[in-house]
Amino acid sequence: MSIQKLVRKDFELLDQQDPLASFRELFHLPIDTVYLDGNSLGVMPLAAIDRMNDVLKREWAEDLIRSWNDNHWFEAPLRIGDKIAQLIGADDGEVIATDSVSINLFKLMVAALNMQKGTGRKVILSEAGNFPTDLYMMEGLKSMLGDQVELVIVDRDHIEESINEDVAVVLLTDVHYKTGHLLNKKSLTERAHKKGALVIWDLCHSAGALPVDLNGISADMAVGCGYKYLNGGPGAPAFLFVAKRHQAKLQQPLSGWWGHARPFAFVDEYEAGPGISSMLCSTQGVLGLSCLEVSIDLFLKADMQAVRNKSVQMCDLFIRLLDEKCSDYNFEVISPLDSTERGSQVSFAHEQGYPIVQAMIDQKVIGDFRAPNVMRFGFTPLYLKYVDVWQAVIVLEEIMQNGTWDQEKFKRVSAVT
Amino acid sequence: MSIQKLVRKDFELLDQQDPLASFRELFHLPIDTVYLDGNSLGVMPLAAIDRMNDVLKREWAEDLIRSWNDNHWFEAPLRIGDKIAQLIGADDGEVIATDSVSINLFKLMVAALNMQKGTGRKVILSEAGNFPTDLYMMEGLKSMLGDQVELVIVDRDHIEESINEDVAVVLLTDVHYKTGHLLNKKSLTERAHKKGALVIWDLCHSAGALPVDLNGISADMAVGCGYKYLNGGPGAPAFLFVAKRHQAKLQQPLSGWWGHARPFAFVDEYEAGPGISSMLCSTQGVLGLSCLEVSIDLFLKADMQAVRNKSVQMCDLFIRLLDEKCSDYNFEVISPLDSTERGSQVSFAHEQGYPIVQAMIDQKVIGDFRAPNVMRFGFTPLYLKYVDVWQAVIVLEEIMQNGTWDQEKFKRVSAVT
Repeated sequence: MSIQKLVRKDFELLDQQDPLASFRELFHLPIDTVYLDGNSLGVMPLAAIDRMNDVLKREWAEDLIRSWNDNHWFEAPLRIGDKIAQLIGADDGEVIATDSVSINLFKLMVAALNMQKGTGRKVILSEAGNFPTDLYMMEGLKSMLGDQVELVIVDRDHIEESINEDVAVVLLTDVHYKTGHLLNKKSLTERAHKKGALVIWDLCHSAGALPVDLNGISADMAVGCGYKYLNGGPGAPAFLFVAKRHQAKLQQPLSGWWGHARPFAFVDEYEAGPGISSMLCSTQGVLGLSCLEVSIDLFLKADMQAVRNKSVQMCDLFIRLLDEKCSDYNFEVISPLDSTERGSQVSFAHEQGYPIVQAMIDQKVIGDFRAPNVMRFGFTPLYLKYVDVWQAVIVLEEIMQNGTWDQEKFKRVSAVT
Repeated sequence: MSIQKLVRKDFELLDQQDPLASFRELFHLPIDTVYLDGNSLGVMPLAAIDRMNDVLKREWAEDLIRSWNDNHWFEAPLRIGDKIAQLIGADDGEVIATDSVSINLFKLMVAALNMQKGTGRKVILSEAGNFPTDLYMMEGLKSMLGDQVELVIVDRDHIEESINEDVAVVLLTDVHYKTGHLLNKKSLTERAHKKGALVIWDLCHSAGALPVDLNGISADMAVGCGYKYLNGGPGAPAFLFVAKRHQAKLQQPLSGWWGHARPFAFVDEYEAGPGISSMLCSTQGVLGLSCLEVSIDLFLKADMQAVRNKSVQMCDLFIRLLDEKCSDYNFEVISPLDSTERGSQVSFAHEQGYPIVQAMIDQKVIGDFRAPNVMRFGFTPLYLKYVDVWQAVIVLEEIMQNGTWDQEKFKRVSAVT
C-alpha cells in the first residue's frame, strides 16, 4: 500500500489477489448492495436453498418420523457442535448446537455455580455495557437465587483487577458488540484460573470472525451465535462449549428430556446424558439446525487465519479511507485503531448517526446503528470484496457532502432499530 | 353404522360424507402410507414449500436485516401466538409462540411460584408417568431452588385429592402421551382454584387435536407443542399461554433481551416488556416460526368441533375393528373406551409391541412404540381418511395371521425408538 491517498484501483488490486475471493459466489448478495451488517445477520449461503428443500420435501414430508434416525436429526446438535468446535479451537464432544445464546448462558452460569459449590464464592462478574442479554440473564438468575449469588458489573478497565477470590464466574464477551473492542481471552482466563474463578466466554462477535482457540487458552465454557458471522440464518440455533475436564461435574437446571441419558426409556427420574449432551434441553428445531449446518460446512473450507488477515486489512482500510474522505464531518472512531485489540467491525460515533446510517442504507450501503450514537459496520471476509470498503466510504462521503442525510425520511427513529 | 361387522365400504362411505375431506389435499402424504404418528410429528402442509422458499430467497437473502421490521420477523412470536390462541380458547395477547415446551414450562413454573410468594405454598404437584420432560424440568427447578420448592408426584387417581392448601402449582398434561387418557381440565382447574393453587396445563397432545377452551375454564397458564397435531415441522417452536388476569404479576427468570420493554435501547438494566411479551427470552428462529405459521393458518380454516367429531369416530372405529379382526392376538386397549375421556389416539399394550409396530411400518402403516409395551396410533382428522383406519387394522391382522412380525429384522430395538 502506498502512502499516497487511496484510490479505487488499490481495492481492485487487493480483490484480484484475495485468496478468499472464490467464497463470495457461494452466497447470495443483493445486487449493488454493500452489506456491512453480517455481524448482525449473516447472508444466505446459496446451498441453503437446496438443503432446506430437501429437509422439507424428503426428510420431513416423505420420511416423516423416521427421519429422527434415518436422516440423523437426533444427532444434529452434537454433529454440528463438533463442526463448530473446529472453528473455535475445541475438541469433539465439547460443543453442542442448541437453543439460544441467552438460554445457553443460563445453563452455563448455573453449571459453573454448581462447580463452585462449597467454595463460598458467589460473585458473577461481568462488564458494564456488555451485550445486554448477558446482563439480563444474570439478573434473571439472581431473581431465582437471591442471596446465593452476587452480581458485580465493572467497567472494562477494571475487569482484571476485579477478578478476585470472591468470584465464582466471570462472564465476558470477547468482542464488544458496539465498539468492536477485543478482550485478551488468554490473560483474563489465566487471571481467573489463578484466582479460582471459572470464565464463560460469549463468542457472539468472534466465532466465524477471527481465529478462536478455546483449548489453547484452557477456556472453561463458552457460548456463541449462529446467525451473525456464522451465517446460519435468522435466529439460527446458538452453540455452547464446555471443556472436557469440566464435563464430569456438569449439572444444569434446564434438564429436559433431550438431555436424558435414555430419552426414549420414558422413565420418571432424570438421569443426565453423557458429557456435553446433558446440556440439551428439549426437541430442537430441525429447520434451523439444518440451515446452520449448511453454513458451517462452508466455513470449514475456509482458513480462519486468512479470514482474519482479510478482516484486519478491510477494517484498517475502512478507517484510513474514512480519515481521508470524511475528516471534515466529526466522525469519532470508537473501535480500537490497533487491530490486535479489535474484532471484525469498525464503529464510529456521530451525533447524527441514526439518520446518516439510514441515508447510507437508502444508497444500498447497509450498516447499523446502536443507541445512542454509534454507526457500526461489520466486515465479513468470506463474502465481501475490498471494493465494498471503498464503495461504503465513497457513499458516506457523498451523503455528508450533499447533506442528503438531513431529510425528513431519515429522521424517524423506529421502535426497533 | 350397522351392527354387522364393519366392511371397507363403511369407511369409504364415511369419507364421502366427511366435511373435512378437502383438507387432505393441502398436505403432503407419502404414497400408499397410512400415517398414524401425527401425534408425534405432524405431516407437511404443501404451502410450507413456497413459504419457506420465500423466507429464504426474499426475506433473508434479499431483504436481510431489514426483514426484522419490513417482513415482520420481530412480531412473529406474538402474531402466531394470537393465531394459536384461537385454537385453544384464548384471547389476543395471551399466547406467544416461542422456545420449546420444556423451556416454557420452566418459565411458567417459576412465574407461578413468584405469584404464590408469601403464601407459604411450595408444592409443585404432577402426575406419575406424566410426559417425562415435565417431570425432568420440575427436577431441574428443584435443583436450583432446593427447600424453597417441594415436588409431589401422584398417580392419576389421586391428583384431585392431592390438590390441597400446600400446593402452589399443579402441572398436568391433559391428554396422556402414552394412553391418550383425557383429564377433566375444568374440574381440576376449579379444584385447584378453590384450594388457592395455580394450574399449568400441558396441551402437547390436545392443541390441534380437540377443542380446548382455556378461558372457558378460567385456566391460569398453559404450554403446547408446535410439531405434533399442529404440523409446524420437526422441532417447531412451542407456545405458552398466560391468562390476562395474571399478566401484571408475571415475572420469569429467563429474562433475555427479547423480553425487554425496549430491546434496542441496549440499557444494562432489565425492564420486562408488557404482558405476554415478557415471556420471550431471546432471538427466535425465523425459519421455524415461519413454517409453523403456515400450518396454523391452515388450521384456522378448520372447525375444531368437526375435527373432534371425526377424531372420535376414527378412534371408536379403530377400537371396534381391532376387536373384530384381532381379538385372538392378546391386544389390550389401554386408551379409555369412553371417547369423552380420550384424546385423539388409541394405544394398546402387547408384549411384542415393538416388533409388531416395526412390521406395520414395514407395511407402510406408521404408528409408534412407547416403552415398555405400548403400541400408539394417533388420529389426525385434517389429513387422514376413514379408510386409513380400515387399512391399518387389516395390515395388523395380516401381520398377526402370518406371523410376519416375528422376524429377526423387527426384533432389534433401536437406541431412540
